[in-house]
Amino acid sequence: MNFFSKHVYRFGADAVDGDGSMRELLGGKGAGLAEMTLLAVPVPPGFTVTTDVCRAYLELGKTPADLPAEVKRALRWLEGTAGKRFGNERDPLLVSVRSGAPISMPGMMDTVLNVGLNDVSVTGLAAVSGSQEFALDSYRRLLQMFGSVVLDVPKDAFEKATHEVRGETTEAASEADLCLMIEAFKGVIQEHTGKPFPQDPMVQLTLAIEAVFRSWQSDRAIFYRKLNKIADTMGTAVTVQSMVFGNRGETSGTGVGFTRNPSTGEPHVFAEYLSNAQGEDIVAGVRTPMPITELAQQMPAVYAELDALTGQLEKHYKDVQDFEFTVESGKLYLLQTRAAKRAALAAVRIAVDMANEGLITRQEAVKRVKPSSLVEMLSPQLDLSAGTYAPLTSGLPASPGAAVGQIALSANAAVAMHATGKDVILLTQETTAEDIHGMDASVGFLTARGGATSHAAVVARGMGKCCITGAKEINIDENTGIAQIGSERFKQGDWLSLDGATGRVFAGQVPMRPASEDHPELDQLLSWALAMKTPQVRANADTPADAAAAVAAGAVGIGLCRTEHMFFAADRLGVVRSMILAKSAKERIVALAELLPIQQGDFEALFRTMSPLPVTIRLLDPPLHEFLPSAHDITADIASARNEENWERCLTLEGMRKQVEALTEANPMMGHRGCRLSLTYPEILQMQVKAILQAALVVAKEGKTPQPEIMVPLVSSEQEMKVLAELIHATASEVLDGEKNLVNYKIGTMIELPRAAVCAGPISKHVSFISFGTNDLTQMTYGFSRDDARSYLDSYLEQGIFKADPFITIDREGVGQLMEMAIRSVRAINPGIKIGICGEHGGDPESIDYFCSLGVDYVSCSPSRLRVAQLASAQTFTAPPQEEARASSHEVVTA
Amino acid sequence: MNFFSKHVYRFGADAVDGDGSMRELLGGKGAGLAEMTLLAVPVPPGFTVTTDVCRAYLELGKTPADLPAEVKRALRWLEGTAGKRFGNERDPLLVSVRSGAPISMPGMMDTVLNVGLNDVSVTGLAAVSGSQEFALDSYRRLLQMFGSVVLDVPKDAFEKATHEVRGETTEAASEADLCLMIEAFKGVIQEHTGKPFPQDPMVQLTLAIEAVFRSWQSDRAIFYRKLNKIADTMGTAVTVQSMVFGNRGETSGTGVGFTRNPSTGEPHVFAEYLSNAQGEDIVAGVRTPMPITELAQQMPAVYAELDALTGQLEKHYKDVQDFEFTVESGKLYLLQTRAAKRAALAAVRIAVDMANEGLITRQEAVKRVKPSSLVEMLSPQLDLSAGTYAPLTSGLPASPGAAVGQIALSANAAVAMHATGKDVILLTQETTAEDIHGMDASVGFLTARGGATSHAAVVARGMGKCCITGAKEINIDENTGIAQIGSERFKQGDWLSLDGATGRVFAGQVPMRPASEDHPELDQLLSWALAMKTPQVRANADTPADAAAAVAAGAVGIGLCRTEHMFFAADRLGVVRSMILAKSAKERIVALAELLPIQQGDFEALFRTMSPLPVTIRLLDPPLHEFLPSAHDITADIASARNEENWERCLTLEGMRKQVEALTEANPMMGHRGCRLSLTYPEILQMQVKAILQAALVVAKEGKTPQPEIMVPLVSSEQEMKVLAELIHATASEVLDGEKNLVNYKIGTMIELPRAAVCAGPISKHVSFISFGTNDLTQMTYGFSRDDARSYLDSYLEQGIFKADPFITIDREGVGQLMEMAIRSVRAINPGIKIGICGEHGGDPESIDYFCSLGVDYVSCSPSRLRVAQLASAQTFTAPPQEEARASSHEVVTA
Repeated sequence: MNFFSKHVYRFGADAVDGDGSMRELLGGKGAGLAEMTLLAVPVPPGFTVTTDVCRAYLELGKTPADLPAEVKRALRWLEGTAGKRFGNERDPLLVSVRSGAPISMPGMMDTVLNVGLNDVSVTGLAAVSGSQEFALDSYRRLLQMFGSVVLDVPKDAFEKATHEVRGETTEAASEADLCLMIEAFKGVIQEHTGKPFPQDPMVQLTLAIEAVFRSWQSDRAIFYRKLNKIADTMGTAVTVQSMVFGNRGETSGTGVGFTRNPSTGEPHVFAEYLSNAQGEDIVAGVRTPMPITELAQQMPAVYAELDALTGQLEKHYKDVQDFEFTVESGKLYLLQTRAAKRAALAAVRIAVDMANEGLITRQEAVKRVKPSSLVEMLSPQLDLSAGTYAPLTSGLPASPGAAVGQIALSANAAVAMHATGKDVILLTQETTAEDIHGMDASVGFLTARGGATSHAAVVARGMGKCCITGAKEINIDENTGIAQIGSERFKQGDWLSLDGATGRVFAGQVPMRPASEDHPELDQLLSWALAMKTPQVRANADTPADAAAAVAAGAVGIGLCRTEHMFFAADRLGVVRSMILAKSAKERIVALAELLPIQQGDFEALFRTMSPLPVTIRLLDPPLHEFLPSAHDITADIASARNEENWERCLTLEGMRKQVEALTEANPMMGHRGCRLSLTYPEILQMQVKAILQAALVVAKEGKTPQPEIMVPLVSSEQEMKVLAELIHATASEVLDGEKNLVNYKIGTMIELPRAAVCAGPISKHVSFISFGTNDLTQMTYGFSRDDARSYLDSYLEQGIFKADPFITIDREGVGQLMEMAIRSVRAINPGIKIGICGEHGGDPESIDYFCSLGVDYVSCSPSRLRVAQLASAQTFTAPPQEEARASSHEVVTA
Repeated sequence: MNFFSKHVYRFGADAVDGDGSMRELLGGKGAGLAEMTLLAVPVPPGFTVTTDVCRAYLELGKTPADLPAEVKRALRWLEGTAGKRFGNERDPLLVSVRSGAPISMPGMMDTVLNVGLNDVSVTGLAAVSGSQEFALDSYRRLLQMFGSVVLDVPKDAFEKATHEVRGETTEAASEADLCLMIEAFKGVIQEHTGKPFPQDPMVQLTLAIEAVFRSWQSDRAIFYRKLNKIADTMGTAVTVQSMVFGNRGETSGTGVGFTRNPSTGEPHVFAEYLSNAQGEDIVAGVRTPMPITELAQQMPAVYAELDALTGQLEKHYKDVQDFEFTVESGKLYLLQTRAAKRAALAAVRIAVDMANEGLITRQEAVKRVKPSSLVEMLSPQLDLSAGTYAPLTSGLPASPGAAVGQIALSANAAVAMHATGKDVILLTQETTAEDIHGMDASVGFLTARGGATSHAAVVARGMGKCCITGAKEINIDENTGIAQIGSERFKQGDWLSLDGATGRVFAGQVPMRPASEDHPELDQLLSWALAMKTPQVRANADTPADAAAAVAAGAVGIGLCRTEHMFFAADRLGVVRSMILAKSAKERIVALAELLPIQQGDFEALFRTMSPLPVTIRLLDPPLHEFLPSAHDITADIASARNEENWERCLTLEGMRKQVEALTEANPMMGHRGCRLSLTYPEILQMQVKAILQAALVVAKEGKTPQPEIMVPLVSSEQEMKVLAELIHATASEVLDGEKNLVNYKIGTMIELPRAAVCAGPISKHVSFISFGTNDLTQMTYGFSRDDARSYLDSYLEQGIFKADPFITIDREGVGQLMEMAIRSVRAINPGIKIGICGEHGGDPESIDYFCSLGVDYVSCSPSRLRVAQLASAQTFTAPPQEEARASSHEVVTA
């Protein structure tokens, strides 16, 4: 309760009416200055007019009737505290009038400095400061700011007047020039407003306060609020503060700094100081500031005080501070302090250091680092500072990092070029599952089509390679082998550089700055994160190499192993095709028997690597035609076989073409795939289950503890799951016969169809785990084909119909509601069940935050996203009640 | 409460312990006989052992300890009522022992007749009946039935014995033969059971009762229950009834009949009578029965009594009765009565007649007719009785009716043949939207692919034409123009006959039996149906002709007009294509301006026809590439243009091919279509809205009352709907400027994506109606592409994974749950909203029943399904409480 006044809150040595918690009423600045004053930090005294007054002014067009009296009373108090009189002729009190919204809107609203000067008091100021130029310049600044901000005089009118006096000179203005400028500015004001500049300091103040309120409604402020979703009704406070001057000679100066290094996080003050200068001189870059050590030499006592004060502020706010200060005639004033922006690397180090210093808890440290910032930190970057590089075009930054290599226009070309030791960038319209060998041989991918979750993007993130998709200004002519990128033409073998962080494409070889592998602070932070009881993080991994990397990065299991990726390998595709082209179940079983030992080998290696962690293996998912060449390719092969008069091959190819045509689907995404394959070709499922469990048995006999989890994809109904669970158990009984206690396998299903979500309860009766396939669930819930959606999704995002791409950040309202329904009924029917996430969203921090709130047991993501996901998951940790009170205190920061 | 006995319920002139409501305890037969006895219908007296006893017997393997005493006591009472003693040597009481389950299981369980006869009493029976042959034959029958049913003697053992006595003769057996057979049968029993036939009547009775209980567990009974979902725990009752004999000479006889004609519904007894015979003689067809009029001549009093009694039964049960009777020595007995099965036509007439007679209410009449039976009634049929026809193959009966015509192998051929006056059957792999002109020119469609909801099927039902889809044994070679159907080969112009009711395909011209258009009773029934306050029925119609037919059939509006069907017409496709191929919005607007008057004309005609009924017009829905020729066709055109050295055309075609390739989608069903087109090409929406409202304005100025309802397809989010509603309103303001009160338009949306269902509440804030597109909603909820699902859906249905095709009968558990969610939130947020259904399910009675239970306001269906839907909807009517009591009484029927 403020007993002094209704509308005005003071901050000064003898009276502080507000505190740091009152951001809404006093704005970030007003609340922060009150808090600093309470902490006995030397702050120039002043007072804040509340946001309530602003709202009233904006609504009624005038300030409350009792405001002038209250402001006058506060001014009298301020005069007492400062020991100067407002508008006094000999030693005038000058004030700044600044905006301060509850949420920081940097630079969006107006400020007027030096309020209180006039034709008379300017001479007093000159006398007191001992500098005619200082006083005149201060008055000149007031006229210019007041004119443009308060009186709406166009800014260029002042610039024109300045030019008339000064011409092109850039030297400091002489006393005579300043006098001329003052006269000219007063003329400008008279001319544009029809009135003279108000000489009455009280009138200046009143008009300045109202002008700041009005600046809440300026076009740029409105635009900024819209952009940042800040409520228009919030309003701004106005802080009136006595001026201090850093330009009063050699024992004066001004500086800005950070309590720790914002780039590296090193725990030392990092600040700059400019002697005999004002803040705007640093900002304008007219003079080069000195390191803070200069201040230590010039005025050791002031330096020591600054060091102590900022240290105190950091402790108080429990965060690195970004501060501004002024020294006026040997006396230190702090003008502002706020939480410092910092680079990813610094954020990690600062959080870890502060926790180690006992300033914050480990949980707080974990919450201090933005998970997505790790992506930047852990990827190599193009070193664009090494020269001048203009991007050719840009696409979607689909997978971070950077890549420099030679263009290959097909997967086969990539493999051939890679074999000769080249770094390859695969440049195609888009990639398909068949290109996997070429992608493996490349250092980065650039596609003309596709979104952030297209095939290329997903594979790239899985492989931890750089990828740019949907770069529309690319035109590839496969016949001529020419690729047009932006306005330039490239051919196979030409060099390109990709910046996966921004999606920009450069010609030639831009130097690379490798990502450091050595981040002890990050390792420490993640070890704390992993110790927190929040949903676990698994990795999506298909190969032993991926699996090993995942374990090294702290994955607690594999959440998704896509068995079809094993089918695409060159040595297997032939067998897979003969399995598909089989004319009977009998023929198919023969081909499957060939595949069995190969798959078993894959699984053995995976189980050995992961033991004793669980490995979730998804049964064959894609439609079979994905494993066959396209009808177009076969037709070409037939033509060439005909040319060679190889009639036998012609016949074989004709048969294949027929089969491909028979398997072709209008909408393969909704076609004959997933568990539908298992129900129509049970022999495929049986082969896979045998391979999994025989592999587990082999590894178990080596003394390890394989944990196979067999996952059935694309289930839509309880009955499908029931029949398939029975078939899996029956097959398992055959394999494990008599050795059941050696292998403990689990059966689960993906929830990736809306109907599976709606009917998850009954489905869950037949499984030990479910895993949400949020990619497909998003596709089906929206009816958006990921492969095709780019054509309208981009437009949706531009038009603001969607706030975010639902394939990147989970749609809580729609898809999320289905997930919530599913989890509720599954937990009710099968309380012991394990619930996971294995879509691309499992690596997106915002989505992870939501999944954790749903109470899932784990999320699974690409290995390159593991650390991001671990941190994001840990950040959902809720401290027990007694710790919560402490945790919240650090949130008080000034704007 | 039965004070006589715990296990046994009597029915006879002096004591009836049960009544018609006790089907569960006494079975259908026992309850029915008790009820008839209560109605003073002459029924041979008897008693029923309850289903409780059956359950106890099946569980414990023996009947309750007190049962023999209770049966003996009931038998004593029966002897008193019948005036004969059981097993008496001179005039024995004989009984039948029959099964009777609570739910009728015709022929599934066993019966033993003539129980109580033995070597001694057979002579008494001969003396009393005056016929040695009758008595011996009765004994012979007992031995045969008892042997096989009670003693498990194989039936062929008796047949073999009979053959040994009688050889191949079919003449009535002589006394001597009968004696030989009796001895032989006794020998068979002795041989197979090791014991003689039990002479003690009480032993016969006890064993027969237990045998009937056991027959509940026979293989065929178990199979039947599984098939018909009857609980195995229900058990059967056993009814013991004194025998009456219709074969006691000229004043005896037996007959069966119906209270009304079961084929035509004519309100006269329709019965047959056989003098001096037993029931099984009629069933066996050994003698030809006489019309019932013979009985009227022979025994007028008996006939009059029969007529009165069955009339009384019909009144009592309020339904047509199927009855059996026996006349023994001039005395009439009714043995059974139950609700009669009847043909569709008869069902309608009987229901209407009974309501007009005041026997049932109009609501009851409406509920008496199975809606799906109307389909058969209203379609022409192949007259297969006219010769011997073997089907070539069969497919799915996708649209009913029949068609006889000459084969066309393409849409263009169909148009050409139709132009020369031929009846055409369009035979293709499948049809697409581009074939619409050819379909219009054909009398029926036969496709090798596709399901009951494929394009061909949907269009056929819309056009009311016969269609068979998914006829797998068809192979069309487009190069040679030869179609292989089953084992025969056909070419264009050959005749085929299609039976849409069964899906059978015949070679040549099978004669047709046209459906009568004249069904006054049906018209009356439907007029009653339409008067009932249940969800209304609209029609899906795209043309004025369809609309007129729909109004004539009582449609209360158009629930779905697909504007794209208008785009495919030959005179428009060119303009549509230039609109799609436009290189800029400006070019597109020029093409759209050409389309505008054409579309406006379409709508004017529709509004004129429908005024003042509402017309729901769906904005353009399919992806644009559907309107372009296929890349394959363009390539062929380019080749021929090249041959003609028409380079300009080559260039144009090349451009088109590029555009087609750019528009090609991996999954068009989930692609750039529906409202996504309106958001990326708003000018298309604007053209359509203008066409709709300008048309409405024109028609309104003619003094009519057009009710345009503009429906936005494929909405997935509130924001899409909000933006489009604003755009439609803005466009409407332009068109209606100053004349707003002339046209009252509405905006609505389809709910056809899972996300739209989940978020229906917020979406509904911006519309006045929603309509569930259950086809797409089913596709997306299951992730089943209708075009592709046949390959696994058939297998699912065969394996019993699905009980019904979800594209035919709505999936209540999954899709339905989404609909329920949607309706709940929509009603809460927008209580005044109108909710409809416009998928194919809108014509399926079982689905309609469900939709009505969800509280929708209307369903919309193909015109050919209108009457089915009207009836199905009316059947969901719930009478106010006071009427309900009456309505339920008719449900008491015997088994």
